[in-house]
Amino acid sequence: MTYNFGAGPCILPNEVFKQASQAVLEFNPTGLSILEISHRTPEFESVVDETVRLVKELLNVPAGYSVLFLQGGASLQFAMVPMNLLGDNQTASYLDTGVWANKAIKEAKIIGNVNVVASSKSENYTFIPKDFQIPEDSAYFHYTSNNTIYGTELMETPKTNVPLVCDMSSDIFSRTINVADFDLIYAGAQKNMGPAGVTLVIVKDEILGKIDRKLPSMLDYKIHIDGGSMYNTPPVFSIYVSMLNLRWLKSKGGVSEIEKENISKAEALYREIDRNPLFKGTCRTEDRSRMNVCFVMENPELEKPFLKFTEERNIVGLKGHRSVGGFRASLYNALPITSVHVLIDAMQDFAEKHKK
Amino acid sequence: MTYNFGAGPCILPNEVFKQASQAVLEFNPTGLSILEISHRTPEFESVVDETVRLVKELLNVPAGYSVLFLQGGASLQFAMVPMNLLGDNQTASYLDTGVWANKAIKEAKIIGNVNVVASSKSENYTFIPKDFQIPEDSAYFHYTSNNTIYGTELMETPKTNVPLVCDMSSDIFSRTINVADFDLIYAGAQKNMGPAGVTLVIVKDEILGKIDRKLPSMLDYKIHIDGGSMYNTPPVFSIYVSMLNLRWLKSKGGVSEIEKENISKAEALYREIDRNPLFKGTCRTEDRSRMNVCFVMENPELEKPFLKFTEERNIVGLKGHRSVGGFRASLYNALPITSVHVLIDAMQDFAEKHKK
Repeated sequence: MTYNFGAGPCILPNEVFKQASQAVLEFNPTGLSILEISHRTPEFESVVDETVRLVKELLNVPAGYSVLFLQGGASLQFAMVPMNLLGDNQTASYLDTGVWANKAIKEAKIIGNVNVVASSKSENYTFIPKDFQIPEDSAYFHYTSNNTIYGTELMETPKTNVPLVCDMSSDIFSRTINVADFDLIYAGAQKNMGPAGVTLVIVKDEILGKIDRKLPSMLDYKIHIDGGSMYNTPPVFSIYVSMLNLRWLKSKGGVSEIEKENISKAEALYREIDRNPLFKGTCRTEDRSRMNVCFVMENPELEKPFLKFTEERNIVGLKGHRSVGGFRASLYNALPITSVHVLIDAMQDFAEKHKK
Repeated sequence: MTYNFGAGPCILPNEVFKQASQAVLEFNPTGLSILEISHRTPEFESVVDETVRLVKELLNVPAGYSVLFLQGGASLQFAMVPMNLLGDNQTASYLDTGVWANKAIKEAKIIGNVNVVASSKSENYTFIPKDFQIPEDSAYFHYTSNNTIYGTELMETPKTNVPLVCDMSSDIFSRTINVADFDLIYAGAQKNMGPAGVTLVIVKDEILGKIDRKLPSMLDYKIHIDGGSMYNTPPVFSIYVSMLNLRWLKSKGGVSEIEKENISKAEALYREIDRNPLFKGTCRTEDRSRMNVCFVMENPELEKPFLKFTEERNIVGLKGHRSVGGFRASLYNALPITSVHVLIDAMQDFAEKHKK
């Protein structure tokens, strides 16, 4: 038994691994491997259809939105969003809350005018800026809902009249959201949706087609909508495993049920961090992420020994990102609360061992 | 036993399916599924390194070339090639030999000036144009080496002094090529390299960085080279299965050995098409593809009954593309010659049944 706290690509449910493994041998009823079937077969078309339906059902996507499965990760979306939504004489507003938000800003600046409404960069992104103004004439407002590296999360959707665009790569399907508040949501799959290699885009149809820019077909949302996510050969296996994983989520009771578990997991771990004299959190309490719990040790010299101590207990993926240091425990949907207890036990046992 | 003649995503070796299936359960030595490991782990970094080494070894890639694993398929390359290589005051030359060549032309025209040196479109792409001139001042010359839909293939590399760019999606690794003749080669994986979801690019380093255009990071070859194909999260599983498949190819004796088998398979099937009075090929004999054998029936009314006849023998994926009709037997590397014999037997038995 391994306890996988990795930040992504990350843990998925065991039964999903079993079903996916079986489909690589035989994808019924084709008699073929899921890796050797044409994406134009009725069997795979029904996989795409079911995955779209599951996304719509689990997130309660209203009418007028399209659900797309693309390639290139959130990083390609950093460019596609301004290419499709930012006109030459317009300005897009961005909130800078971490490395990924910053990359989104950098890519948007290649395409057009960008206004950064606020940034917590100077304090190493340890909090989410709150008092910012979004100019009413912004082409759109873009933010990152969860900051994987720094362990902060925007629980409240910013209020604005301009079109709202959100990178939800690391917290989509982890908590209820009101899709109607957004005009475009994108997410690399490899946290709570599925394996690496596919990117979810949920876009309000009416915001498209308003920009004059001539786009390559693969970078044009409208063309992917017209092609039903199959303008060209899609990442067949990644979509298939996403379907399996979303089926699992549905069987667990859906997003609102998993959200309760995610709250319990995060609360238990933060409680231990705040209680245990050896550890401390790295960001402001009110902005703490439920998905990525970042913490360090009061005595940095104990960090290596603690990491070794956890590894001996088969806890993996706990090392913090180099820009924060310390530890990062990622508590994605598929991580059972028992794994959190194993980690808390390790923290307590280690503290016991180092008691003076 | 199923005989999979599908055009792609297509058959891969059975042992690759077995190994891939196992790695979805447990990717050793991590103890984790290949679907839940970080791409920054040493274990996955060695997968990428080995896959690059296998590509270089199997294709005898000279020094000065970079090997990349990207996302978005050949369709994204249709745009990336001109974005990276076609300057504002330049013209790129293209050869139009089929649907995919045509799409490449269409996308290049969105970026810059395009000169189509020759086209066989007016004769439904049944042959490869031979007598064409490539202007010496072309930014590059682009062609498609194998035309999956029409069943034609350019066996001889065009001679030119301008940079040579080739879409080898459907025949790479099927026959020996001289990579040094090319400046950029790209190929969607889902024929002879691996499953859908990853795209191979082999690029001569010195042709990059000569264009002024400001590119989004994900569309800039140089950034992917600097990132070692891991500028962002790569399609982990598709790369892993590609590695397994290239290992298999190496164990078979490499490209020159598989080429002999591919010649035998294609010769046997074309011989039957030419011999059997019920069938006929759809394109000029000298341009016939080894990968995709397209044929129709002298009496079109027999086509449906013949398709049914083959399906009863577990032959799948034989239906021709709608723009050609009839049948298409794809003979990719992993298709054993025994499958070709099963098809030939079916053709002969069907002819026997319909003898007057």
